[in-house]
Amino acid sequence: MSDCVFCKIIKKEIPADFVYENDRIVAFLDIHPSNKGHTLVVPKEHHTDLLVTPDEVLAEIMAKTKKIAPAVVKAVNAQGFNTIFNTKPAAGQMIFHTHLHIIPRFTNDGLKHWPEQKTTSEELKRIKDKIVLAL
Amino acid sequence: MSDCVFCKIIKKEIPADFVYENDRIVAFLDIHPSNKGHTLVVPKEHHTDLLVTPDEVLAEIMAKTKKIAPAVVKAVNAQGFNTIFNTKPAAGQMIFHTHLHIIPRFTNDGLKHWPEQKTTSEELKRIKDKIVLAL
Repeated sequence: MSDCVFCKIIKKEIPADFVYENDRIVAFLDIHPSNKGHTLVVPKEHHTDLLVTPDEVLAEIMAKTKKIAPAVVKAVNAQGFNTIFNTKPAAGQMIFHTHLHIIPRFTNDGLKHWPEQKTTSEELKRIKDKIVLAL
Repeated sequence: MSDCVFCKIIKKEIPADFVYENDRIVAFLDIHPSNKGHTLVVPKEHHTDLLVTPDEVLAEIMAKTKKIAPAVVKAVNAQGFNTIFNTKPAAGQMIFHTHLHIIPRFTNDGLKHWPEQKTTSEELKRIKDKIVLAL
Protein backbone atom coordinates (compact mmCIF):
# COMPACT_ATOMS: atom_id res chain seq x y z
CA MET A 1 0.00 0.00 0.00
CA SER A 2 1.44 3.32 -1.08
CA ASP A 3 0.67 5.15 2.18
CA CYS A 4 1.76 2.36 4.57
CA VAL A 5 4.91 3.14 6.55
CA PHE A 6 5.82 -0.55 6.90
CA CYS A 7 5.44 -1.12 3.15
CA LYS A 8 7.82 1.81 2.65
CA ILE A 9 10.32 0.32 5.12
CA ILE A 10 10.09 -3.06 3.34
CA LYS A 11 10.74 -1.34 -0.01
CA LYS A 12 13.70 0.51 1.62
CA GLU A 13 12.07 3.87 0.93
CA ILE A 14 12.26 4.63 4.67
CA PRO A 15 15.34 3.50 6.64
CA ALA A 16 15.12 0.99 9.50
CA ASP A 17 17.50 -1.17 11.52
CA PHE A 18 16.90 -4.52 9.86
CA VAL A 19 17.95 -7.62 11.77
CA TYR A 20 16.48 -10.26 9.41
CA GLU A 21 15.02 -10.56 5.93
CA ASN A 22 13.90 -13.40 3.71
CA ASP A 23 11.47 -13.60 0.76
CA ARG A 24 8.36 -13.46 2.98
CA ILE A 25 9.19 -11.44 6.12
CA VAL A 26 11.47 -8.78 7.54
CA ALA A 27 12.41 -7.94 11.12
CA PHE A 28 13.63 -4.54 12.29
CA LEU A 29 13.97 -2.60 15.52
CA ASP A 30 11.01 -0.61 16.84
CA ILE A 31 12.07 3.04 17.03
CA HIS A 32 9.71 3.47 20.02
CA PRO A 33 10.98 0.55 22.14
CA SER A 34 9.13 -0.68 25.24
CA ASN A 35 12.43 -2.26 26.24
CA LYS A 36 15.94 -2.39 24.78
CA GLY A 37 15.93 -4.64 21.70
CA HIS A 38 12.18 -4.34 20.94
CA THR A 39 11.89 -5.87 17.47
CA LEU A 40 9.04 -6.10 14.94
CA VAL A 41 8.50 -9.12 12.68
CA VAL A 42 6.57 -8.02 9.61
CA PRO A 43 5.29 -9.90 6.55
CA LYS A 44 6.31 -8.37 3.21
CA GLU A 45 2.75 -8.69 1.89
CA HIS A 46 0.44 -5.93 3.10
CA HIS A 47 -2.30 -7.31 5.38
CA THR A 48 -4.17 -4.97 7.70
CA ASP A 49 -4.08 -7.14 10.81
CA LEU A 50 -3.82 -10.68 12.18
CA LEU A 51 -7.40 -11.60 11.20
CA VAL A 52 -6.83 -11.12 7.48
CA THR A 53 -3.28 -12.48 7.35
CA PRO A 54 -3.05 -15.86 5.57
CA ASP A 55 -2.31 -18.85 7.80
CA GLU A 56 0.95 -19.64 5.98
CA VAL A 57 2.20 -16.08 6.53
CA LEU A 58 1.44 -16.31 10.27
CA ALA A 59 3.19 -19.69 10.33
CA GLU A 60 6.29 -18.10 8.77
CA ILE A 61 6.21 -15.19 11.25
CA MET A 62 6.08 -17.59 14.21
CA ALA A 63 8.72 -19.98 12.82
CA LYS A 64 11.18 -17.15 12.27
CA THR A 65 10.31 -15.52 15.60
CA LYS A 66 11.63 -18.71 17.21
CA LYS A 67 15.00 -17.92 15.57
CA ILE A 68 15.00 -14.14 15.95
CA ALA A 69 13.79 -13.83 19.58
CA PRO A 70 16.73 -15.80 21.09
CA ALA A 71 19.15 -13.60 19.14
CA VAL A 72 17.40 -10.49 20.47
CA VAL A 73 17.49 -11.88 24.02
CA LYS A 74 21.19 -12.71 23.69
CA ALA A 75 22.06 -9.33 22.17
CA VAL A 76 20.59 -7.34 25.08
CA ASN A 77 21.28 -9.90 27.85
CA ALA A 78 17.56 -10.36 28.56
CA GLN A 79 15.98 -13.21 30.52
CA GLY A 80 12.78 -13.70 28.53
CA PHE A 81 10.48 -12.06 25.99
CA ASN A 82 6.87 -11.35 25.08
CA THR A 83 5.54 -11.81 21.54
CA ILE A 84 2.45 -9.73 20.85
CA PHE A 85 0.06 -9.00 18.01
CA ASN A 86 -2.24 -6.03 18.72
CA THR A 87 -5.41 -6.19 16.61
CA LYS A 88 -7.58 -3.07 16.10
CA PRO A 89 -7.09 0.41 17.64
CA ALA A 90 -8.79 -0.57 20.93
CA ALA A 91 -5.95 -3.08 21.41
CA GLY A 92 -3.21 -0.54 20.72
CA GLN A 93 -2.67 -1.29 17.02
CA MET A 94 -1.26 1.87 15.43
CA ILE A 95 0.19 0.66 12.10
CA PHE A 96 -2.36 -1.22 10.00
CA HIS A 97 0.08 -3.69 8.50
CA THR A 98 0.31 -6.94 10.47
CA HIS A 99 3.32 -7.07 12.81
CA LEU A 100 4.49 -9.10 15.77
CA HIS A 101 6.26 -7.31 18.63
CA ILE A 102 9.18 -9.14 20.25
CA ILE A 103 9.76 -7.39 23.59
CA PRO A 104 12.83 -8.60 25.52
CA ARG A 105 12.27 -8.81 29.26
CA PHE A 106 14.63 -8.47 32.18
CA THR A 107 13.99 -9.85 35.66
CA ASN A 108 12.31 -7.07 37.65
CA ASP A 109 12.30 -4.64 34.71
CA GLY A 110 9.21 -2.98 36.16
CA LEU A 111 6.92 -3.62 33.15
CA LYS A 112 3.64 -4.51 34.79
CA HIS A 113 1.25 -7.11 33.43
CA TRP A 114 -2.38 -6.15 33.48
CA PRO A 115 -4.07 -6.88 36.81
CA GLU A 116 -6.51 -9.72 37.24
CA GLN A 117 -10.15 -8.70 37.07
CA LYS A 118 -12.64 -10.18 39.49
CA THR A 119 -14.92 -12.83 38.02
CA THR A 120 -17.07 -15.74 39.17
CA SER A 121 -17.48 -19.28 37.88
CA GLU A 122 -21.03 -18.33 36.83
CA GLU A 123 -19.79 -15.40 34.77
CA LEU A 124 -17.09 -17.56 33.16
CA LYS A 125 -19.73 -20.12 32.17
CA ARG A 126 -21.99 -17.43 30.69
CA ILE A 127 -19.08 -16.03 28.64
CA LYS A 128 -18.03 -19.53 27.54
CA ASP A 129 -21.56 -20.22 26.26
CA LYS A 130 -21.56 -16.97 24.29
CA ILE A 131 -18.16 -17.71 22.70
CA VAL A 132 -19.22 -21.24 21.72
CA LEU A 133 -22.37 -19.80 20.18
CA ALA A 134 -20.33 -17.24 18.22
CA LEU A 135 -17.85 -19.80 16.87
CA MET B 1 3.56 -34.11 31.99
CA SER B 2 1.98 -35.52 35.13
CA ASP B 3 2.46 -32.37 37.23
CA CYS B 4 1.40 -29.84 34.54
CA VAL B 5 -1.92 -28.13 35.26
CA PHE B 6 -2.62 -27.55 31.55
CA CYS B 7 -1.98 -31.24 30.74
CA LYS B 8 -4.50 -32.08 33.49
CA ILE B 9 -7.05 -29.66 32.01
CA ILE B 10 -6.51 -31.17 28.54
CA LYS B 11 -7.05 -34.67 29.98
CA LYS B 12 -10.20 -33.35 31.76
CA GLU B 13 -8.73 -34.19 35.15
CA ILE B 14 -9.21 -30.53 36.16
CA PRO B 15 -12.32 -28.67 34.98
CA ALA B 16 -12.15 -25.63 32.68
CA ASP B 17 -14.52 -23.59 30.54
CA PHE B 18 -13.62 -24.97 27.11
CA VAL B 19 -14.61 -22.91 24.09
CA TYR B 20 -12.84 -24.97 21.40
CA GLU B 21 -11.15 -28.33 20.95
CA ASN B 22 -9.71 -30.28 18.04
CA ASP B 23 -7.10 -33.05 17.80
CA ARG B 24 -4.14 -30.67 18.28
CA ILE B 25 -5.29 -27.75 20.44
CA VAL B 26 -7.81 -26.65 23.06
CA ALA B 27 -9.03 -23.19 24.08
CA PHE B 28 -10.52 -22.36 27.47
CA LEU B 29 -11.18 -19.29 29.60
CA ASP B 30 -8.41 -17.96 31.85
CA ILE B 31 -9.69 -18.09 35.44
CA HIS B 32 -7.56 -15.01 36.21
CA PRO B 33 -8.79 -12.75 33.38
CA SER B 34 -7.06 -9.47 32.48
CA ASN B 35 -10.34 -8.56 30.78
CA LYS B 36 -13.73 -10.21 30.35
CA GLY B 37 -13.40 -13.12 27.87
CA HIS B 38 -9.63 -13.66 28.36
CA THR B 39 -9.03 -17.01 26.61
CA LEU B 40 -6.01 -19.33 26.39
CA VAL B 41 -5.16 -21.33 23.25
CA VAL B 42 -3.11 -24.36 24.26
CA PRO B 43 -1.54 -27.20 22.25
CA LYS B 44 -2.43 -30.70 23.49
CA GLU B 45 1.22 -31.78 23.30
CA HIS B 46 3.28 -30.64 26.27
CA HIS B 47 5.96 -28.12 25.23
CA THR B 48 7.53 -25.87 27.84
CA ASP B 49 7.38 -22.62 25.88
CA LEU B 50 7.25 -21.02 22.44
CA LEU B 51 10.92 -21.70 21.68
CA VAL B 52 10.55 -25.49 21.86
CA THR B 53 7.10 -25.71 20.28
CA PRO B 54 7.20 -27.25 16.77
CA ASP B 55 6.49 -24.86 13.90
CA GLU B 56 3.40 -26.80 12.79
CA VAL B 57 1.91 -26.59 16.30
CA LEU B 58 2.45 -22.81 16.37
CA ALA B 59 0.88 -22.59 12.90
CA GLU B 60 -2.19 -24.44 14.17
CA ILE B 61 -2.44 -22.18 17.25
CA MET B 62 -2.35 -19.05 15.07
CA ALA B 63 -4.75 -20.41 12.43
CA LYS B 64 -7.34 -21.32 15.07
CA THR B 65 -6.78 -18.07 16.97
CA LYS B 66 -8.01 -16.30 13.82
CA LYS B 67 -11.30 -18.20 14.28
CA ILE B 68 -11.55 -18.09 18.08
CA ALA B 69 -10.59 -14.44 18.70
CA PRO B 70 -13.49 -12.96 16.66
CA ALA B 71 -15.92 -15.21 18.57
CA VAL B 72 -14.45 -14.00 21.87
CA VAL B 73 -14.67 -10.37 20.72
CA LYS B 74 -18.29 -10.86 19.65
CA ALA B 75 -19.26 -12.67 22.86
CA VAL B 76 -18.10 -9.83 25.12
CA ASN B 77 -18.80 -6.92 22.72
CA ALA B 78 -15.12 -5.97 22.54
CA GLN B 79 -13.49 -3.72 19.93
CA GLY B 80 -10.15 -5.48 19.52
CA PHE B 81 -7.80 -8.00 21.12
CA ASN B 82 -4.19 -8.74 21.98
CA THR B 83 -2.60 -12.15 21.38
CA ILE B 84 0.40 -12.79 23.60
CA PHE B 85 2.90 -15.55 24.28
CA ASN B 86 4.98 -14.92 27.42
CA THR B 87 8.28 -16.82 27.31
CA LYS B 88 10.30 -17.44 30.52
CA PRO B 89 9.51 -16.18 34.05
CA ALA B 90 11.05 -12.73 33.43
CA ALA B 91 8.34 -12.25 30.78
CA GLY B 92 5.50 -13.27 33.09
CA GLN B 93 5.24 -16.93 32.06
CA MET B 94 3.75 -18.83 35.00
CA ILE B 95 2.59 -22.15 33.47
CA PHE B 96 5.36 -23.95 31.62
CA HIS B 97 3.16 -25.40 28.91
CA THR B 98 3.01 -23.21 25.78
CA HIS B 99 -0.12 -21.06 25.63
CA LEU B 100 -1.36 -18.03 23.74
CA HIS B 101 -3.41 -15.41 25.60
CA ILE B 102 -6.32 -13.84 23.70
CA ILE B 103 -7.20 -10.67 25.65
CA PRO B 104 -10.32 -8.84 24.39
CA ARG B 105 -9.99 -5.08 24.46
CA PHE B 106 -12.53 -2.32 24.86
CA THR B 107 -12.03 1.28 23.76
CA ASN B 108 -10.64 3.16 26.78
CA ASP B 109 -10.58 0.06 29.00
CA GLY B 110 -7.69 1.56 30.95
CA LEU B 111 -5.20 -1.26 30.24
CA LYS B 112 -1.98 0.61 29.67
CA HIS B 113 0.64 -0.41 27.15
CA TRP B 114 4.21 -0.20 28.33
CA PRO B 115 5.72 3.25 27.93
CA GLU B 116 8.29 4.03 25.29
CA GLN B 117 11.88 4.00 26.52
CA LYS B 118 14.27 6.67 25.36
CA THR B 119 16.79 5.52 22.77
CA THR B 120 19.05 7.00 20.09
CA SER B 121 19.73 6.01 16.51
CA GLU B 122 23.28 5.09 17.60
CA GLU B 123 22.00 2.76 20.32
CA LEU B 124 19.54 1.17 17.87
CA LYS B 125 22.38 0.51 15.43
CA ARG B 126 24.56 -1.04 18.15
CA ILE B 127 21.71 -3.34 19.21
CA LYS B 128 20.94 -4.23 15.59
CA ASP B 129 24.57 -5.27 15.02
CA LYS B 130 24.52 -7.47 18.14
CA ILE B 131 21.27 -9.17 17.07
CA VAL B 132 22.58 -9.84 13.55
CA LEU B 133 25.75 -11.29 15.09
CA ALA B 134 23.68 -13.55 17.37
CA LEU B 135 21.44 -14.83 14.56
